[in-house]
Amino acid sequence: MTDKKNPIAAALAAALCLAAAPTHADDAGGEGMWLPSQLPAIADQLRAAGYKGDPAALADLTKPPMNAVVSLGGCTASFVSPQGLVVTNHHCARGAIQLNSTPEDNLLEKGFIAADRAAERSAGPGARVLVTVAFDKVTDRILADARGKTGRAYYDAVDVAEKALVAECEADEGYRCSVADMYYGTDFYLIKQLELKDIRLVYAPPEAVGNYGDEIDNFMWPRHSGDFAFYRAYVGKDGKPAEFSKDNVPFEPQAWLEVSTDPVAEGDYAMLAGYPGRTYRHRMAMEFAHQVEIGLPSRIDLYGAMIDAIEAASAGDKAAEVAYASTVAGLKNGLKRARGELDGMQRSDAVAVRRADETAMLAWLDGQPGADALEADIHAAQALIAASHAGDEASQLFAQIRGRTELLAAAYRLQRLALERGKPDAGRERGYQERDEARIKAALEQATRRFDPKVEKALLAELLERHRALPADQHIAEIDAVFGTDAAAVAKTMDRLYADTALDDEAERLRLLVAEPTAVKASTDPLMQAAARLLPAALREEDADKQLAGELLRLRPSYMEGLIGYRESQGRAVYPDANSTLRIAFGNVIDLHPRDAVRYAPLSTVAGIVEKHTGEAPFDAPDVLLEAIAKGDFGSTIDPVLKTQTVDFLTNLDTTGGNSGSAVLDANGRLIGLHFDSNWEAVSASWMFDPRYKRGIHVDTRYMRWLMSKVYPAPWLLEEMRLPAE
Amino acid sequence: MTDKKNPIAAALAAALCLAAAPTHADDAGGEGMWLPSQLPAIADQLRAAGYKGDPAALADLTKPPMNAVVSLGGCTASFVSPQGLVVTNHHCARGAIQLNSTPEDNLLEKGFIAADRAAERSAGPGARVLVTVAFDKVTDRILADARGKTGRAYYDAVDVAEKALVAECEADEGYRCSVADMYYGTDFYLIKQLELKDIRLVYAPPEAVGNYGDEIDNFMWPRHSGDFAFYRAYVGKDGKPAEFSKDNVPFEPQAWLEVSTDPVAEGDYAMLAGYPGRTYRHRMAMEFAHQVEIGLPSRIDLYGAMIDAIEAASAGDKAAEVAYASTVAGLKNGLKRARGELDGMQRSDAVAVRRADETAMLAWLDGQPGADALEADIHAAQALIAASHAGDEASQLFAQIRGRTELLAAAYRLQRLALERGKPDAGRERGYQERDEARIKAALEQATRRFDPKVEKALLAELLERHRALPADQHIAEIDAVFGTDAAAVAKTMDRLYADTALDDEAERLRLLVAEPTAVKASTDPLMQAAARLLPAALREEDADKQLAGELLRLRPSYMEGLIGYRESQGRAVYPDANSTLRIAFGNVIDLHPRDAVRYAPLSTVAGIVEKHTGEAPFDAPDVLLEAIAKGDFGSTIDPVLKTQTVDFLTNLDTTGGNSGSAVLDANGRLIGLHFDSNWEAVSASWMFDPRYKRGIHVDTRYMRWLMSKVYPAPWLLEEMRLPAE
Repeated sequence: MTDKKNPIAAALAAALCLAAAPTHADDAGGEGMWLPSQLPAIADQLRAAGYKGDPAALADLTKPPMNAVVSLGGCTASFVSPQGLVVTNHHCARGAIQLNSTPEDNLLEKGFIAADRAAERSAGPGARVLVTVAFDKVTDRILADARGKTGRAYYDAVDVAEKALVAECEADEGYRCSVADMYYGTDFYLIKQLELKDIRLVYAPPEAVGNYGDEIDNFMWPRHSGDFAFYRAYVGKDGKPAEFSKDNVPFEPQAWLEVSTDPVAEGDYAMLAGYPGRTYRHRMAMEFAHQVEIGLPSRIDLYGAMIDAIEAASAGDKAAEVAYASTVAGLKNGLKRARGELDGMQRSDAVAVRRADETAMLAWLDGQPGADALEADIHAAQALIAASHAGDEASQLFAQIRGRTELLAAAYRLQRLALERGKPDAGRERGYQERDEARIKAALEQATRRFDPKVEKALLAELLERHRALPADQHIAEIDAVFGTDAAAVAKTMDRLYADTALDDEAERLRLLVAEPTAVKASTDPLMQAAARLLPAALREEDADKQLAGELLRLRPSYMEGLIGYRESQGRAVYPDANSTLRIAFGNVIDLHPRDAVRYAPLSTVAGIVEKHTGEAPFDAPDVLLEAIAKGDFGSTIDPVLKTQTVDFLTNLDTTGGNSGSAVLDANGRLIGLHFDSNWEAVSASWMFDPRYKRGIHVDTRYMRWLMSKVYPAPWLLEEMRLPAE
Repeated sequence: MTDKKNPIAAALAAALCLAAAPTHADDAGGEGMWLPSQLPAIADQLRAAGYKGDPAALADLTKPPMNAVVSLGGCTASFVSPQGLVVTNHHCARGAIQLNSTPEDNLLEKGFIAADRAAERSAGPGARVLVTVAFDKVTDRILADARGKTGRAYYDAVDVAEKALVAECEADEGYRCSVADMYYGTDFYLIKQLELKDIRLVYAPPEAVGNYGDEIDNFMWPRHSGDFAFYRAYVGKDGKPAEFSKDNVPFEPQAWLEVSTDPVAEGDYAMLAGYPGRTYRHRMAMEFAHQVEIGLPSRIDLYGAMIDAIEAASAGDKAAEVAYASTVAGLKNGLKRARGELDGMQRSDAVAVRRADETAMLAWLDGQPGADALEADIHAAQALIAASHAGDEASQLFAQIRGRTELLAAAYRLQRLALERGKPDAGRERGYQERDEARIKAALEQATRRFDPKVEKALLAELLERHRALPADQHIAEIDAVFGTDAAAVAKTMDRLYADTALDDEAERLRLLVAEPTAVKASTDPLMQAAARLLPAALREEDADKQLAGELLRLRPSYMEGLIGYRESQGRAVYPDANSTLRIAFGNVIDLHPRDAVRYAPLSTVAGIVEKHTGEAPFDAPDVLLEAIAKGDFGSTIDPVLKTQTVDFLTNLDTTGGNSGSAVLDANGRLIGLHFDSNWEAVSASWMFDPRYKRGIHVDTRYMRWLMSKVYPAPWLLEEMRLPAE
């Protein structure tokens, strides 16, 4: 199936002599983050791939098994017992584990096993389990008022309709609602989720197991991490969502997943249900080209220069180095990801592949009835996108100036928030609503310990120098006005701004957070004034962004219509790009050939834990685990082929960020794993699914069962899941 | 077969769950660097492994095919045509390529193809091709006078007998002779080699092909290096060895290897003939333990400290950094190898495996006739070895003091050489004979550009501090006497030595090289005086070493007799440890499982060249190569299974340093590859052959043929080897 989907990729693979590295594409599955409602239409493909259940039964999100899959907001999880037991990744429960840790009782280090229900600990007031109860197409209501409009007006009409629908839906207490946009404005869905608020930590292995290998192994395969943990959802005695209370009772879900007791083997069917965050697979060829030729290289160049500037300015000053460690780590991570994405897109020849596909699509479209209108929209969208890039560089620099600094960023946030604080909450700009204030406050609080004036000035100098180097017509006038137009003036301005500001005082920042908006605007603090003078440029950008977004929301559906029609003409379905809604992927347990003459097997084993063990984090396997491995008592979880205990496994399932914790199911719909990472070669999969390189990394539920049986025993939980004790 | 040889390793492998990583040990072959004369005895094993020829025919070094395999002194090579064409590794011909290069005509960079015989270029006056013409057991003659003696007297008797035999043999003009000691003094062989002296460079690919990946890929698999080059051996018109002359004619060897035109595939039989340098497989268990517990850790500690001392002293001084770059690189390479050897011995549990084997051998021996005498010798040898370690640390430091410095080392060499220069050449100490003077002179010449006084003093300070920290009874008195016994005295001494010496002047060093020995000894240069005062300690060590060597030469044969008898009782043969004599290894083309869930395929392909290509050395594949790969015109050299061009391949053949350039033959004795490296996991193979990890890396002759046909064409050479033109 994957070969059918990507004929050019397949041809490229053949050209690159992948006979030496068979991708088992014939095993079917792989690409596709399908809406559950699409599954009946591709039922044959699921059956061909090996699914033994009824594909149609997967289509209804409110029925088993799909209603056993829940969102934690950012992560995916699943009910695994009738008493509200929830399984997710260790790294998704990390906050809850940390919250319940003290220096004397460090649960991250020791792990946690609640001896009984009473010992289960609150995951914190912010923890949520969201159970989808309705998923309805609302395209007509959303677009009713937008039709006939263009640009910003189109955007605002959609925005208003969405907010109205959400408010109406959330009138039903205990539910959280949202509107999801499929195929870039083609369809809209109203999602209604039961919002469970009393979530408790039940079981977590030590971090040295749950996060074995940490950053060093991140993105890597072979992996040896037991990345799982258990929550339990509680509700009030009336069965309704309630805040934490001792009197609450376990939530009784309508469905829960059965944990498999069968082995997992290469070639096996696998299926994944979860909430992938965002992909760009159906973006236009010109957008692919821009990303590869300009977007990523310019980000790589900019981040590299920013890292250099920070490191040079803080070198030899231990305190400054510590203050900027997190900023530098963030930039380096961004740089690494951008490089990985660029490498991957180049390796897969993504631009050429997408361009050839688009050319074929447009050629097909040309002969279809109504093609003219679609083509006109497509050309209009392309012209808009091309024009929008003119200001990209300045925009990117401005975003870093107001986002990657500390004090200047604080001043900007205070000014931007003050502008919104006057309005009713529903009318406020996203990111500056009441729900965002806690996050803004936290950022303001930590600014001091992340700040050093000479480093911020050096970083700013680098960004401003790059701004000055842009052609005059790309300059943002406010930046020139505030900072000056030559290096000497900039240096002088910065000296003055940072010498005279009071924003290096946390109390002053927090005072301005709650001060009268007019007082904030009128603040005489030089950094506050600078931010106030930069604000119009930012607002102008926001407006332009919405204008563009509105037009593209109106025009892109024509491109999608062409693409969907073209695929249909080939007998193929199109999944919408990921947008944090529940999706299903299906495929196989499969190996990976990352480079010539290298093959990664799809199952890792405990032998790898011993091989990697150094005794120092992140490779500090606990003694009890090493002893259990040496003992070799693997009971019912032993792999019948490998004759040892497996740890993690690899599939070609289609995933992206947000899929963490996703249930991986076998051909009978039983839980065989939890998704927790992708491989390095697949960083570019947000743009293009290359069947040669895209893999999902999952923890094997047999490893989970073995740990819960023999290493960190919790037999009562195994019993609750109706699993063998040994 | 390998499993039979290493029952404990096999048990360990099983315990480590290597079901997941099958070693294909059943394919037979692997461990063993066999004397050709042993092959008739293990003929069944060769046939079982897949050899289709007559094993007995391999036993005679003076008959085909073995007399086609020659030594270059340090590297192995083979005749591949009746006109004296010789194939070896590119890295073995590197010196000759460099010698023929100029900045304007850089053959390393461009490669070299002699358009015809006249264009073939001299590989230099030192180049040699050595063809073995006789290999005779001379044990009785060598030991005749030694028997009944002990220690130094035993050593000297063997030394005198060896020198006499060599002199007698070399009386036949045009031959070079040597005596090889098998099984640690059990047997001695006289080797007579025809010494061809007019060696010419015929063909070499560019370095970017022949050494693709250079240091980064060194020890690594998958590999993508075309590490081959061609020489031609010439002789005088009378057919006898002669120095270079235009009038010389190609040497007509008695035998040459046929280059295979068949594909190579996983599991295929493979056989290797070459000159492995040195192994320690039959050392005693106590020697294994000493190496793992003390020898390697102490070397790792010392080298690390020396690197730190040099780097700290040269930091910030660009000239000093450059001067010591090569010294530091040498130490780092030594450190890396020591770490690799230690890791590997630990990974293979080499000490336990060897100890269990030795214990079983001694238990078996106990019941045999004549066991008492053997056991007495073994215990005596063990006691001697144990006692000898007492001075190891001081000895190691002294070796670094006089070997890893520059000016002090020059002074020491001058004094040591002056002591020998008075004697007739045959009576001189090895390393200080006439043939060694050119090497000593070269070292004296380059001392200046590798020297910086503050760095040499810092290095010396580190070594002397370590010497002072030894228990008093381990001190070398001369070191204390020359340098002083506390840090202040040492610093003062060093200041004086380096302030007042004239040895930083190259002319002065070279003057002393040829000055009257008595004048050298009486030199008033402070460093020369210091070296003269250290000399007695070095001579004492030399004497103790010979004393020990003599005793072990006398005693170890008893250990070997026990081991050989024990193996014989199990129906198994024992190969002698490697000693730079011609050996044969046999086994299979085989994959490698370096760690959990990772498999390296045994054949690399040109796809890997493209993947690794960055455009910068060492991954700067030439355009002409990249274009040829893209074109995909692989002709008769295409792999029928992989459908592309292979580059290098992997076998389980038993090799060590010195095997570079070794012919790798197929089941019919035809040339399928040239050995050029081993994998990182096999660094410890000099001590223990672990079938799970020991691999040889060879260039595939199909890649060589393709390059010579399509990329850097030399059709006349293919024709000379009777190979297809395409």
